[in-house]
Amino acid sequence: MGIPTRKSLEHLHCSVANTAELIGDRWTVLILRDAFLGVRRFDDFQKDLGIARNVLTDRLAMLVEAGIFSPRLYEDRPPRFEYRLTEKGRDLYDLLVTMWRWGDKWSPPEERFLRNLIHIDCGTVTHAVIRCEGCGGDLDTRNTRVEPPLALVEQRRARAAT
Amino acid sequence: MGIPTRKSLEHLHCSVANTAELIGDRWTVLILRDAFLGVRRFDDFQKDLGIARNVLTDRLAMLVEAGIFSPRLYEDRPPRFEYRLTEKGRDLYDLLVTMWRWGDKWSPPEERFLRNLIHIDCGTVTHAVIRCEGCGGDLDTRNTRVEPPLALVEQRRARAAT
Repeated sequence: MGIPTRKSLEHLHCSVANTAELIGDRWTVLILRDAFLGVRRFDDFQKDLGIARNVLTDRLAMLVEAGIFSPRLYEDRPPRFEYRLTEKGRDLYDLLVTMWRWGDKWSPPEERFLRNLIHIDCGTVTHAVIRCEGCGGDLDTRNTRVEPPLALVEQRRARAAT
Repeated sequence: MGIPTRKSLEHLHCSVANTAELIGDRWTVLILRDAFLGVRRFDDFQKDLGIARNVLTDRLAMLVEAGIFSPRLYEDRPPRFEYRLTEKGRDLYDLLVTMWRWGDKWSPPEERFLRNLIHIDCGTVTHAVIRCEGCGGDLDTRNTRVEPPLALVEQRRARAAT
């Protein structure tokens, strides 16, 4: 079904790779952005993004197959489907607002399609920052450590030994 | 320079699109993952990811051009470069750990290449959650609101009117 065959990343045994495998595609990211903005129908995705219809068909099928969209028939003749985010799909919200923040900071468009993210609880215009799910403190490259993957550790040891 | 010509997403005037334009590619995500793990050299990226050399060359050139990597000559004959994350590049850390969290939750590999993310400040194994940069509270789809982009608002109005 769907998107052109690509080399699977499964052999990398990596959660980041698995996420990239699903949404590491520009159109998929934009379809998800629109879904979070309330777009549900083929023609609306198509019109909003100016995406080729065959590409959109492929990506929607892939997102349904991956359990990120749940299709719902809203018209019988001809049969037409709405695409709603599942729980797995809604959980990609973190990723989308994190992409938004980075883009606003480092690659802001002159005239912004996405204007402001409002945090209703405190009523302010906000951006997403990442925090520790345990203590709530900031997470950054300096105060975190990745338990080193073996392959890379060995690579560095081999280099140090030569 | 570099990667195959694709339709630019600039006309979408969107920070998410601009971010997707840069890292909306599986290999680019994985090169960045390795960079955060300390990989800097062509051969080490290549060996670790099993990526085709021409693809790796293209992606590194693109990341240098985008100001995400800064190249540094570490060997004269033949000339060889290390690729170090710039400030703009290091700021993609949020995105990478957010992808990690989602992958761990929804698409975990059986044997994990990335084992644990340790928050040094509190000493625990953690995952990244997103918070409001203002009040520090949780951000999710229910307690946030996007100032509605005009095109989509009009689309919905038109639908409601028919």
